[in-house]
Amino acid sequence: MLIRCRKYGISFDSLTPSAHPTSVQIMAEPRVVTFTTDFGLQDPFVGIMHGVVLSIHPETRIVDICHAIPSFDLLDAAWTIAQSYRFFPPRSVHVIVVDPGVGSARRPIVAETDDYIFVAPDNGVLSLIEAREPSMTVRHIIADRYFLQPVSQTFHGRDIFSPVAGWLSKGVAPSEFGPEISDYARLPFPSVEHVAANSLRGMVLKVDKFGNLITNLSELDAPSLFAAAQPKVRLLIAGQTVTHVCRSYAEGNDEELFAIVGSSGYLEIAARRTSAAERLQAGVGTPVGVILQL
Amino acid sequence: MLIRCRKYGISFDSLTPSAHPTSVQIMAEPRVVTFTTDFGLQDPFVGIMHGVVLSIHPETRIVDICHAIPSFDLLDAAWTIAQSYRFFPPRSVHVIVVDPGVGSARRPIVAETDDYIFVAPDNGVLSLIEAREPSMTVRHIIADRYFLQPVSQTFHGRDIFSPVAGWLSKGVAPSEFGPEISDYARLPFPSVEHVAANSLRGMVLKVDKFGNLITNLSELDAPSLFAAAQPKVRLLIAGQTVTHVCRSYAEGNDEELFAIVGSSGYLEIAARRTSAAERLQAGVGTPVGVILQL
Amino acid sequence: MLIRCRKYGISFDSLTPSAHPTSVQIMAEPRVVTFTTDFGLQDPFVGIMHGVVLSIHPETRIVDICHAIPSFDLLDAAWTIAQSYRFFPPRSVHVIVVDPGVGSARRPIVAETDDYIFVAPDNGVLSLIEAREPSMTVRHIIADRYFLQPVSQTFHGRDIFSPVAGWLSKGVAPSEFGPEISDYARLPFPSVEHVAANSLRGMVLKVDKFGNLITNLSELDAPSLFAAAQPKVRLLIAGQTVTHVCRSYAEGNDEELFAIVGSSGYLEIAARRTSAAERLQAGVGTPVGVILQL
Repeated sequence: MLIRCRKYGISFDSLTPSAHPTSVQIMAEPRVVTFTTDFGLQDPFVGIMHGVVLSIHPETRIVDICHAIPSFDLLDAAWTIAQSYRFFPPRSVHVIVVDPGVGSARRPIVAETDDYIFVAPDNGVLSLIEAREPSMTVRHIIADRYFLQPVSQTFHGRDIFSPVAGWLSKGVAPSEFGPEISDYARLPFPSVEHVAANSLRGMVLKVDKFGNLITNLSELDAPSLFAAAQPKVRLLIAGQTVTHVCRSYAEGNDEELFAIVGSSGYLEIAARRTSAAERLQAGVGTPVGVILQL
Repeated sequence: MLIRCRKYGISFDSLTPSAHPTSVQIMAEPRVVTFTTDFGLQDPFVGIMHGVVLSIHPETRIVDICHAIPSFDLLDAAWTIAQSYRFFPPRSVHVIVVDPGVGSARRPIVAETDDYIFVAPDNGVLSLIEAREPSMTVRHIIADRYFLQPVSQTFHGRDIFSPVAGWLSKGVAPSEFGPEISDYARLPFPSVEHVAANSLRGMVLKVDKFGNLITNLSELDAPSLFAAAQPKVRLLIAGQTVTHVCRSYAEGNDEELFAIVGSSGYLEIAARRTSAAERLQAGVGTPVGVILQL
Repeated sequence: MLIRCRKYGISFDSLTPSAHPTSVQIMAEPRVVTFTTDFGLQDPFVGIMHGVVLSIHPETRIVDICHAIPSFDLLDAAWTIAQSYRFFPPRSVHVIVVDPGVGSARRPIVAETDDYIFVAPDNGVLSLIEAREPSMTVRHIIADRYFLQPVSQTFHGRDIFSPVAGWLSKGVAPSEFGPEISDYARLPFPSVEHVAANSLRGMVLKVDKFGNLITNLSELDAPSLFAAAQPKVRLLIAGQTVTHVCRSYAEGNDEELFAIVGSSGYLEIAARRTSAAERLQAGVGTPVGVILQL
């Protein structure tokens, strides 16, 4: 099932399989805490945050989702956590620290959906989560008794977000941290434009490690593109035309670029065993034209 | 003890110490799951796989062996897991996802040796394990009730390999996943050539982070080289001659390249506190000549 | 509170908040083992060390503090662990493997402070810990029954440091590993020079992922610089003058470089949302002049 989120003009898929088939017995404990940051791994920042969580609740299982978010890139962070959060056990605590406003008046928040808890700065990094979930309750974290004191002005990941995650993983309720708010930040996301009846204009959202170009085009934008076994389409990107739609990377041939529905439900431009990004000199923001031949 | 595997024309050492001295009390639980992939760490792929395993069995201990395998490099992956697997507790589940054929007809397999379980695509990445182990039972994974559904065509690491590893770590027997097969893929490995009575020709298999050049030359290829305190030998590589064999990196002097038996039992070409790879402009595939002066 | 360590001519802060507020219930088990190395993540070295620890004590929680120490850089390693160790639960075992002397006569040591245990080569990487702690007991590790046998000459991280850490995390007392020593190595650290009554000369110790230049200037060197809301100061670095001292990165404006007290209590030179290191073409070792305008 795909849900359309008009708020951000982008479609979000629910195509990705549930990580929790009914036959799985989920144990109430231990809780998982995940981290998604732009900290990189060359400094001890990430290890220190793990230490803070384990100091509060040594039973916590900590998972690093990604620390390679480009510095201060809220859109990339929002996309990364939105692609990942559902593959963790219910009641996992997801911490996102991409925080250009650290030390300023921007608020720390804790958000709850049916199955997950999120801890983040109030800068819109949870916008895609909100768009995908039936409901989300957001609170302003003000209970500074849970912080490491004194709180530094430059490393709230250590002094605020990690200890709050530690206490959440230990079972403290989100309501303990502060009052519910509704005026939290939302990020505008790049939308797919319907240029004509058979013509769309999207863009590249992300380049993965293999050089695959992940676009913002999903099934709701062009159902025929996703449903047909051999859809007739022309994709225009970086001065080239792509007409081949494959079901797997292995299916592509070595000479040709092709399109494929990626693992998060979005259309990708790929090349077999080489980097499509390098071949096209394309990257985040590159426009992608779609001409459907119905 | 070194065992000779004629099948691949390469020697495999059992020199590396057992990680399980008899005095260690191994607890039956928790199980360890390890990951070895070419996914890198810039995307959330690795974190998502951890989440899938923990969703199935929250008690599992997850270890990342390496995610920096060059994209689609089966030989590097085979070498990496072969160097590593024995240092984990018995019954650890080792997952290898270097999978150029993802989405194609290549089979997912689960392999059992006396002490370990391996989950991988059927593309030969387990060839060095088979060569080192007295026995290996390989099964075709067909029990799709253990997969995340629907299975994507581009991320079997998430949808097949991780959930299977999760269930294995929870105690499901390998036989539950599918029938035994014998026609699984084997990789040909670069062999050491015996050019003359006192002359061998090998190659560089791997360059480590410090720039040490790890060759495919082991004790069985040239016992005298490994046994003698000061072996008389000339190593020819990238137009240079190396005659000094050291017991430790610290023993080398600053001007000179030297040879050393590395921690996995293979001969390395090294330079004290600098990169031999950079000094020689050498890398994976560079030929290494050996002239023994008996 | 700041303590002055005259021995190394550098000040060490105790400003960083305790990770263990009195209300935290610390569980005796499981123990944490951390790793700080110059191994990088492209080889399986780190994963193998995790495997060795878990083979000895599967209940251990392992945290990677940092594996990006520049090869053989003892000063960087000393700084990294000193910045990090206090954020872990009491009785955590911190393993540091930056070891240019591997295979030589340099000793392996285990050091105990009031709250932590350290395992490292005897090359001075614990100097900053000693400077910050009221007491430290150092022992020469000689009990080779705890090593992986045979011990390689090139990977003591695997064969000595990790198994010792595993046994320590399982509860073996440090005194079991060898006799106390007092002639262990100390590293000289770059000191802040008092050039004149109102003039200091420090240097850049570290560049973080965001390009912030962390100096060796702390509160004891220039109390007025840290205490005043708007201190009057001129900082001279790489031919430029910095006069603005901010409380947070967000407070800086886009055109200007500014100074800030960083999360480990040292003065940093930063630029808002860009790299100060790139803008100044400055790095580790760049001198920093301070002229206080009292």
